[in-house]
Amino acid sequence: MAHIDLKNDYPGIRGPMAFSPQTAKPLNDLAEILLRDDNNALTRGERELIATYVSSLNDCFFCQNVHGGLAQHYFQCDIGFVEAVKIDVATSAVSDKMKALLYIAASVQQGGKKVTAKQIEAAKGQGATDKEIHDTVLIAAAFCMFNRYVDGLATSAPEEKTYYIERAKQRAEEGYAGYDASK
Amino acid sequence: MAHIDLKNDYPGIRGPMAFSPQTAKPLNDLAEILLRDDNNALTRGERELIATYVSSLNDCFFCQNVHGGLAQHYFQCDIGFVEAVKIDVATSAVSDKMKALLYIAASVQQGGKKVTAKQIEAAKGQGATDKEIHDTVLIAAAFCMFNRYVDGLATSAPEEKTYYIERAKQRAEEGYAGYDASK
Repeated sequence: MAHIDLKNDYPGIRGPMAFSPQTAKPLNDLAEILLRDDNNALTRGERELIATYVSSLNDCFFCQNVHGGLAQHYFQCDIGFVEAVKIDVATSAVSDKMKALLYIAASVQQGGKKVTAKQIEAAKGQGATDKEIHDTVLIAAAFCMFNRYVDGLATSAPEEKTYYIERAKQRAEEGYAGYDASK
Repeated sequence: MAHIDLKNDYPGIRGPMAFSPQTAKPLNDLAEILLRDDNNALTRGERELIATYVSSLNDCFFCQNVHGGLAQHYFQCDIGFVEAVKIDVATSAVSDKMKALLYIAASVQQGGKKVTAKQIEAAKGQGATDKEIHDTVLIAAAFCMFNRYVDGLATSAPEEKTYYIERAKQRAEEGYAGYDASK
């Protein structure tokens, strides 16, 4: 049971977003621009993968499955591809540039000051641009917020992973802006 | 020096916000509704104090001084009042309700799952409403994002505390929405 009376039974972030639509608006606007905007060299799948990885490091069941489902949808891969990233970035099937960016994201998850000049150099060495590094840091930082919002209020989350896989296609089509938490 | 070329010399979050105005917009909209909206039982000073405390726990020099300056401005107090909260909430001069909310914020800073039912009960016992608890969790979560954004990119920050005190009045008047990072 959630820590407060959310006045609804929606799982995960949908609960507090329906409870507080005023704050849900900028949160969804942020997710839209960060994870879906077309003016970005990182694919939507890569950005959802960063979100998934950070949510996994924060042990947020709801977020890692929602965004893992979306990453899987965009990559057109099986869930093993996403799970492998969570288990060990180094041996996963992502590109060397993505690995370098995921290492930066992992540092951000621990704390902003954990990001090292060496990690930044490594990412640049793999061709990462300033915008890609900026977006990686902000996506990782944003999911340190979303994860804490979801778990800090003790929201519920469906245990069945199919729930997340099935919803991914709809979310990919509709996006985050104008998100209706009741659907 | 920042980890990436921000194309400007603005300190703290102003640097990446000027670098990426598209993402700055929802970030500032979020800060506006969370920290300044009048439909809130927590005063602006109390909300800035939660932001300051979390930024202090995250060791983010820029954010804790910007928002500490604002808290001081709204409370019309000296900086000792704010510093005392950072040093020890229990012996600080804030109300018992605020202490209970600050303990929740401290747990959120560590991770969403660190918030305990006992902390929530204690806050409710001091008269905190569901909305106040919701807002406390989201403010704390949001500053876990803002702090990581600022420090994850290794932005600069003026060392002189007077810089922050002097700017607080202007920020209190202008708010966060429509924030121009260049000013």
